Amino acid sequence: MAPTDRAPALGLIGGAGVLPALMAREAQEAGWRVVVFALAEPAALPSVVDRVILFRLGDVGPLLDTLQSEGIRHLVLAGGVRKDGLFQGMPLDGVARALLDQAPDWTDESLLRTASAALESMGIELLDQRRFLGPWLAPAGHLAGPVVDAGLLADARRGLEAARALGRLSIGQTVVVKAGAVVAVEAMEGTDETIRRGLALAGPGASVVKAPAPGHDYRFDVPTVGPDTVARCAAGQARILAVEAKRVLLLDRDTVATEASRAGLTVIGLGETAGDR
Amino acid sequence: MAPTDRAPALGLIGGAGVLPALMAREAQEAGWRVVVFALAEPAALPSVVDRVILFRLGDVGPLLDTLQSEGIRHLVLAGGVRKDGLFQGMPLDGVARALLDQAPDWTDESLLRTASAALESMGIELLDQRRFLGPWLAPAGHLAGPVVDAGLLADARRGLEAARALGRLSIGQTVVVKAGAVVAVEAMEGTDETIRRGLALAGPGASVVKAPAPGHDYRFDVPTVGPDTVARCAAGQARILAVEAKRVLLLDRDTVATEASRAGLTVIGLGETAGDR
Repeated sequence: MAPTDRAPALGLIGGAGVLPALMAREAQEAGWRVVVFALAEPAALPSVVDRVILFRLGDVGPLLDTLQSEGIRHLVLAGGVRKDGLFQGMPLDGVARALLDQAPDWTDESLLRTASAALESMGIELLDQRRFLGPWLAPAGHLAGPVVDAGLLADARRGLEAARALGRLSIGQTVVVKAGAVVAVEAMEGTDETIRRGLALAGPGASVVKAPAPGHDYRFDVPTVGPDTVARCAAGQARILAVEAKRVLLLDRDTVATEASRAGLTVIGLGETAGDR
Repeated sequence: MAPTDRAPALGLIGGAGVLPALMAREAQEAGWRVVVFALAEPAALPSVVDRVILFRLGDVGPLLDTLQSEGIRHLVLAGGVRKDGLFQGMPLDGVARALLDQAPDWTDESLLRTASAALESMGIELLDQRRFLGPWLAPAGHLAGPVVDAGLLADARRGLEAARALGRLSIGQTVVVKAGAVVAVEAMEGTDETIRRGLALAGPGASVVKAPAPGHDYRFDVPTVGPDTVARCAAGQARILAVEAKRVLLLDRDTVATEASRAGLTVIGLGETAGDR
């Protein structure tokens, strides 16, 4: 069927969490016909989605067939995808096996770059996720909790500088800072463990800062904070949760506002310029 | 007593570990008269030291008096010093209290900078510890254990680059790397915990790399590895322990060589240039 007589089709490969539903709704409102390839249970997807296809990571052939039959020229990833199965003998179809053979290694980055190159050769573009997540990107300025003084804000700015530098080195996105000193740095242990360790070392009053690398590839994932992050910061008695403005998603702002106020935690978006308190 | 009729006097403030004894012997062989102010039990000091004075961190007045009466114009720190006592109500004499009141805060760096400024105003210079520790600085090249291939060496070089960058940010000195990825980064948890976490995350075959910040102040401390570090690396099945050549001490090389060979761990000094395998 030719796509020209219909709205343009967006393929959405949806993993876990709330992002696939948020993106699907946003894309529909922007005029796209949305075809969801659901890796997780699609319970949370809006009923208005045009088509939902259950999809297994190892079955790449049927996915490509559907992309072509639906006239899909634009694809977007959304939500968490676990690749554990790849390493645990997940059954792979011939197309998946051929793709894996092309990847230089099985790091997330290599697998995704190999996949996006294969899609490009079919005339299918993998889109920047921010195109459909704009409303949930954290703005600059005070977002929740009490207003903080210049001393605490200096810790958050120090953390932003450190997190950006770590990103340039492809190390991690999250740091914990107190009294000007970087207390913990994220590498492969992940954000949750970094926050836990950093706040345990720092004691009450620290700042948790998350900022993606300057060259972060938003086609593959968007760094995100939300009520879970607030709960972790509150448990460790942090004073600030800061994210880089326009570059990190802030989910479920009502819950974030309520829980941050309760915990005396300030949530803040840090921008390039002054005036972001 | 005028110092002119004798060898020049070196004041050595000696903390825990083997470094005070190594430094005292080296300084004596270089022609200094060595007066040791011992913060720890001086059992390990060589009998040839000219004078040993037991000294408590809170008694700064008698220290300054002795520096003057002995004609000491050069002072060097050596070994581990715990400042916990300062925070736990250690009795302080008037001079110590006045010094602490001058420090902007009680970070190690502030306390040491305040102390060195006070010494300078008395005409006493705090010396770079490397002046007396030259023989124990790690040279460039293969130091112990099996020879490694270029792939593993690339991990060590990646770690050196990352550790230097972290140093420029005043974060930490130690990183764990595997297959090109930085697995763990030291901040306030310290070197031992960073090695433990990084090797637990990385599994066998990782590289542990220690390099001081480019602007590291060698008057205050010298980064050090030795048999304990080798044991930690061996326990986590690391393949490489790399240090920045000429900028990190390598203690007890015989034990290091034996234990590294036993564990299949390569110990290496990384220099600025090629040819350091």
